[in-house]
Amino acid sequence: MNGPLLSTWALDELVRRALEEDIGPGDLTTMATVPEATRATGVFLCKDEGVVAGLFVCARVFALLDPAVRFAARVAEGASVKRGDVLAEVSGPARPLLTGERVALNFLRHLSGIATRTARMVALVKDYPVRIVDTRKTTPGLRALEKYAVRIGGGYNHRFGLYDGVLIKDNHIRAAGGIRAAVRAARAVVPHTVKIEVEVEDLAGVEEALAAGADAILLDNMPPAMMREAVRLVAGRAVLEASGGITEANVVEVAATGVDLVSVGALTHSVKALDVSMELWEE
Amino acid sequence: MNGPLLSTWALDELVRRALEEDIGPGDLTTMATVPEATRATGVFLCKDEGVVAGLFVCARVFALLDPAVRFAARVAEGASVKRGDVLAEVSGPARPLLTGERVALNFLRHLSGIATRTARMVALVKDYPVRIVDTRKTTPGLRALEKYAVRIGGGYNHRFGLYDGVLIKDNHIRAAGGIRAAVRAARAVVPHTVKIEVEVEDLAGVEEALAAGADAILLDNMPPAMMREAVRLVAGRAVLEASGGITEANVVEVAATGVDLVSVGALTHSVKALDVSMELWEE
Amino acid sequence: MNGPLLSTWALDELVRRALEEDIGPGDLTTMATVPEATRATGVFLCKDEGVVAGLFVCARVFALLDPAVRFAARVAEGASVKRGDVLAEVSGPARPLLTGERVALNFLRHLSGIATRTARMVALVKDYPVRIVDTRKTTPGLRALEKYAVRIGGGYNHRFGLYDGVLIKDNHIRAAGGIRAAVRAARAVVPHTVKIEVEVEDLAGVEEALAAGADAILLDNMPPAMMREAVRLVAGRAVLEASGGITEANVVEVAATGVDLVSVGALTHSVKALDVSMELWEE
Amino acid sequence: MNGPLLSTWALDELVRRALEEDIGPGDLTTMATVPEATRATGVFLCKDEGVVAGLFVCARVFALLDPAVRFAARVAEGASVKRGDVLAEVSGPARPLLTGERVALNFLRHLSGIATRTARMVALVKDYPVRIVDTRKTTPGLRALEKYAVRIGGGYNHRFGLYDGVLIKDNHIRAAGGIRAAVRAARAVVPHTVKIEVEVEDLAGVEEALAAGADAILLDNMPPAMMREAVRLVAGRAVLEASGGITEANVVEVAATGVDLVSVGALTHSVKALDVSMELWEE
Amino acid sequence: MNGPLLSTWALDELVRRALEEDIGPGDLTTMATVPEATRATGVFLCKDEGVVAGLFVCARVFALLDPAVRFAARVAEGASVKRGDVLAEVSGPARPLLTGERVALNFLRHLSGIATRTARMVALVKDYPVRIVDTRKTTPGLRALEKYAVRIGGGYNHRFGLYDGVLIKDNHIRAAGGIRAAVRAARAVVPHTVKIEVEVEDLAGVEEALAAGADAILLDNMPPAMMREAVRLVAGRAVLEASGGITEANVVEVAATGVDLVSVGALTHSVKALDVSMELWEE
Amino acid sequence: MNGPLLSTWALDELVRRALEEDIGPGDLTTMATVPEATRATGVFLCKDEGVVAGLFVCARVFALLDPAVRFAARVAEGASVKRGDVLAEVSGPARPLLTGERVALNFLRHLSGIATRTARMVALVKDYPVRIVDTRKTTPGLRALEKYAVRIGGGYNHRFGLYDGVLIKDNHIRAAGGIRAAVRAARAVVPHTVKIEVEVEDLAGVEEALAAGADAILLDNMPPAMMREAVRLVAGRAVLEASGGITEANVVEVAATGVDLVSVGALTHSVKALDVSMELWEE
Repeated sequence: MNGPLLSTWALDELVRRALEEDIGPGDLTTMATVPEATRATGVFLCKDEGVVAGLFVCARVFALLDPAVRFAARVAEGASVKRGDVLAEVSGPARPLLTGERVALNFLRHLSGIATRTARMVALVKDYPVRIVDTRKTTPGLRALEKYAVRIGGGYNHRFGLYDGVLIKDNHIRAAGGIRAAVRAARAVVPHTVKIEVEVEDLAGVEEALAAGADAILLDNMPPAMMREAVRLVAGRAVLEASGGITEANVVEVAATGVDLVSVGALTHSVKALDVSMELWEE
Repeated sequence: MNGPLLSTWALDELVRRALEEDIGPGDLTTMATVPEATRATGVFLCKDEGVVAGLFVCARVFALLDPAVRFAARVAEGASVKRGDVLAEVSGPARPLLTGERVALNFLRHLSGIATRTARMVALVKDYPVRIVDTRKTTPGLRALEKYAVRIGGGYNHRFGLYDGVLIKDNHIRAAGGIRAAVRAARAVVPHTVKIEVEVEDLAGVEEALAAGADAILLDNMPPAMMREAVRLVAGRAVLEASGGITEANVVEVAATGVDLVSVGALTHSVKALDVSMELWEE
Repeated sequence: MNGPLLSTWALDELVRRALEEDIGPGDLTTMATVPEATRATGVFLCKDEGVVAGLFVCARVFALLDPAVRFAARVAEGASVKRGDVLAEVSGPARPLLTGERVALNFLRHLSGIATRTARMVALVKDYPVRIVDTRKTTPGLRALEKYAVRIGGGYNHRFGLYDGVLIKDNHIRAAGGIRAAVRAARAVVPHTVKIEVEVEDLAGVEEALAAGADAILLDNMPPAMMREAVRLVAGRAVLEASGGITEANVVEVAATGVDLVSVGALTHSVKALDVSMELWEE
Repeated sequence: MNGPLLSTWALDELVRRALEEDIGPGDLTTMATVPEATRATGVFLCKDEGVVAGLFVCARVFALLDPAVRFAARVAEGASVKRGDVLAEVSGPARPLLTGERVALNFLRHLSGIATRTARMVALVKDYPVRIVDTRKTTPGLRALEKYAVRIGGGYNHRFGLYDGVLIKDNHIRAAGGIRAAVRAARAVVPHTVKIEVEVEDLAGVEEALAAGADAILLDNMPPAMMREAVRLVAGRAVLEASGGITEANVVEVAATGVDLVSVGALTHSVKALDVSMELWEE
Repeated sequence: MNGPLLSTWALDELVRRALEEDIGPGDLTTMATVPEATRATGVFLCKDEGVVAGLFVCARVFALLDPAVRFAARVAEGASVKRGDVLAEVSGPARPLLTGERVALNFLRHLSGIATRTARMVALVKDYPVRIVDTRKTTPGLRALEKYAVRIGGGYNHRFGLYDGVLIKDNHIRAAGGIRAAVRAARAVVPHTVKIEVEVEDLAGVEEALAAGADAILLDNMPPAMMREAVRLVAGRAVLEASGGITEANVVEVAATGVDLVSVGALTHSVKALDVSMELWEE
Repeated sequence: MNGPLLSTWALDELVRRALEEDIGPGDLTTMATVPEATRATGVFLCKDEGVVAGLFVCARVFALLDPAVRFAARVAEGASVKRGDVLAEVSGPARPLLTGERVALNFLRHLSGIATRTARMVALVKDYPVRIVDTRKTTPGLRALEKYAVRIGGGYNHRFGLYDGVLIKDNHIRAAGGIRAAVRAARAVVPHTVKIEVEVEDLAGVEEALAAGADAILLDNMPPAMMREAVRLVAGRAVLEASGGITEANVVEVAATGVDLVSVGALTHSVKALDVSMELWEE
């Protein structure tokens, strides 16, 4: 399931909007200076170390601009790359290559940045039976692609949105009149295909969620020792997710508690783009 | 011109897409656990130090979900805030408050992250008559908002896209047959309202661009000493922009060369979200 | 959660499309014969027995055509009504009332038809702890509203689409290499918030699904005796859904087997509209 | 004119919306369990007796999901089919076949249901020079396809919407100040390419409409004897349409009165889907 | 039926597209030079003689930009105006007034240009019982508004498009195998609410069309004498439309032949904008 | 830069909207009278003298209707043509040829009308080093195509909209507190890639604009003698644009003053379509 979970036309719609945003009524410079007949060939060159995600988006950028452009990935999605590696080759009419360059790079660098950070987290906890999962703290409009990049980096996805999972937080609990009432209310109406997760802050909460029949429990900002106790207490009867302030510095300690999932908002909310450029030669 | 340069409906379209992405066919948890009549009140609480941008986007998030929600900013756009500051207050029906929380925060944290980093750069060079400007290395779909956040942080905008400025780079120069030919070709066809900027890598390029009548010259990855020489050579006859690999570590040295503009891609391509949360109390 | 699980703008988009489909460039008859100043008042009159669903859609139809129209429901969503009952009152400018009449009725009659049929099914099995659930056999474009009408009729929703639940059918099983492999493959990649259901045709399948750790099992076209045996065999360790050819004639027998859910495609794929008309008087 | 009266892109838009509604961010089950390389072949199998309509829509469903799928109709649009008949063959990558199955069937079964019911009505009156026509009582969003299915079943279309025909009803008549005034008002402003029809409830109305120069007269809920008298009275000077409560039980009696058209709302407002399934074998 | 035959949202969509086309990411000049608090008041001033159409479109332009702008028409749609007349008054925040000025004027001047030319044609033939009608030679995207402007000028509309009328031209006749076959084919399938018009070039064609039962006959580029003969020959049994090369110079001669309709493409394909400007005073 | 400055999909969107506007739910006449198998071939025939613009739009009209249609331009964009010239040849299925004819011609005739008028203006001033430029007085929705047609006719484009150039007019000046303040305000915030133009009405204004550092000055409705004086005064330090009431009658006199640009609103606001028809023969 490493496909982007995004239909072709949803992807094309995203790409088209990005192109319209950049090109507007036209690429003045290219149209003025590059003859229509000029052809070019080039490469996407990596200038840093990381994990690649989003080459297929670049392919759509150029395909939508001009079907005559040929874009060929030279590494697979998810490949670990280093400075100097060629990620893809392009060739064709020079105009669409120049016009599409920035949009293609903006997608590729952003998604690869996410995959890179995720892979680093995953590597840190590779000795534990734990999943690194993302959150809903994504860039507006790019969630499907960003969650794809997390998978490419070896991470897992939490629910996609508010519609495909139930996560009962403190406000829901208060509004429903307690954990038990909230879980019962949810169970009573959501499709039977959806699991119910409850967010708790202490062991009393864990016990209450368990008693209420929660399928999963989110341990919010718990100290590792308390998490370990929660793991012991639950003993496999619910999925346990650690969440809140988890960084590369403390993720191993959290993983060692025995939780099933560690969710990390920064995978998608604070992205450092992977440094990639396009080098082009006219033919 | 600190308005977002984005019409109301373009903004609403962005917000609606973000909401649809998150809510899809419905917020299962909230609808199941929170009675329709429950009302709540709360605050947007800052948990780090930074510059605020995007409160008006949060206002639209809730307005589109339910006009009955009241959202009141407590600080101005561009305010410098610290941990513990209240950025805004919200009140109204609990359901839309809970359903819109994440989307509102995703916008606010991202844009404030950009404003914060920009402000830090601007502060560093405050003693020089130089502008910190952004680039086209923005997140696909969010350019107008991101460029707004740069302005809020005290930075300036470079062109918005390929359509409102001419920036002649190496490939354009080769395709046109030299700087002089490229500038002439551009001058011949673009509207007289648009300036022509040429990217060069050495002093010979600077001289050639100047001779060709360029309105602005981008000094690409030049060492500071060469930039200083370029400033001397141009002597005010063209706008000079320093670009390439400029960070907080070297921006002062670059500013000290006397260039007019310093463009920094990382303002928008590698954003660290400002930490803000929404705290809610049911009434 | 009886709200339509459909955002205001998604609903308005549906209504607008329906109005555009009917009105196109204009309601020739009304514009030619009804003076702009004419006002009218009227009722939505029920001419058959059933359960009402969709009055809020009618309200949007008129609100979008002309905010000056007043539409007031006279019965609640889900009310059981009979011939002669007034479902709603309308008043305002005569033109939008006449122009919107058909679209409003098309929605109301269709959704009420679904709620009515669902309520009849639900009534039949009211003595059993079983849920009547819908399927994905809905009218293209109207799924959210149709699933809402099922809930209004007392039924429950199955997953909304292919994205918020896993239902492993025979083709998936063969492609994955068996039930066990299919469940494992799904568990390995779908968010932990989503349950896994397996469709089986005999008791061997039930046992295999159970062993594979399925959260739910769909009993496809099983004879009631075999279903009863499946219930005994599973003993609460998974949710059991009966499906295939279930009608008002045999639903009680199926419910009596002890399954948890009975899914009925005809709730939405073969709808008989509830007979409602709009009676209008000019003022 | 049996084409669907719907441009390719309007059809594709409908299909795309139906696919998005069902697939959302992705078909979890198929992506998790079916390898990308798996290929399959299968048939659309009829499990009841009826008239086929909408195979070309199924073709678009698969074409939009994946151009590599081959869809070949095995019977013509409008063919009378029976249980066991193969309606179409499909082959290609297994994933899009499984993902698109339900949407394709939802269209095909619904449209074939309409064609089937229409054909039964048409067969009943085959000895009379009368047309069975549809109404505007269609499913919101599907009018063009539903009216196409009526034609495929041997029926005829009434106007497509409020914009391409004038049908003056009681409210219009009252607002305009009588039939004569209403017809004159309409004649004065509508394009000369559009006919004017008047709805009447008794013979006085028929005479008045005729005197006013109506091109067509709708006999609303008239008893057959009165219709016969209307036919005699009009003597070919206007088209006569019988409407209101016409079913398979009374349509022959109505047709025998000599009216030109019989309009039947239930053709489209109360559809029983034709039972068709897709049987698939992996290769 | 002088309403624009265009729903509110279709109109708003048109206006929004025009505004986006002009404003793009923002009105640089206004945002840079006009303080947000500046208020202004002004008038739409007519600088030529003509007939006004489209003031309600101007109202929407400003309403969409900023609901705080007040726009009040000072003359009615269709009013005959002269140099110096005030057509409307505006007041409110200066920014949206300046930003929307050009788009509002572009609509108003274009539509008034059409109404003005139409009114001149209508005045020329005022002594004959003939209608001046438009054609499908309209500006892409603006047909509904342009046909509205024709009505405002005292003209009448021909069919709105290919969907609401049948006009059988030479190619259709040849393809169908003659006029009789073409009319029969059309009659057999189009809704009974639509009239059938046949285009002919000589009197033999007129007779053939009449014999075939055409409801209307278009006399294509006939000399006036032949038209007069056609009028005599048809004697009221079909509507007669004169078409082809009709200008202000020959329209009276054509009208005098006794035809019912004179269609003039130039009403909409060659428009001279009415000269109107907006004069604004800051408060 | 003679490309239309309009992406393929923006063009296709325009064309699709024009087709939908004309065809709506279907071309009744063609579908009823022309058999699906009929093929035809034909030409676009010029019936007047002018300059051709927009043949590529016609190509898209037919391509979108039916990829089986072959459209081949027989003259280049910008060619000077005369009565009797064949502009393009078409062949393929007769139905899409007939259905698309009017929309294709509406685009071609309108754009060629603009190119023709522009070319006439350009020819008049061919002995002066002056550019004929367009304005923002364009038809709503068609600006990109109309500005393209101006270029095809030998003219130049002014800014595309409010977003890619600064033009400070009297209201802006008053709001900012004088020309100097307005220019400074603009310079302070707009991207450095955008030039600043100031509109003035007398020589004092010219001097003030020059002193304020304006890049360009628009001479609004100045008498030629004053323009000449302005040219002398400015002496190349700013671009000078003459504007206001310039027609074929006075353009030479204006050009002779030495201004750099002459802007003419009537190029796009008062278009006389070039007379072109499509002649078709069935095969």
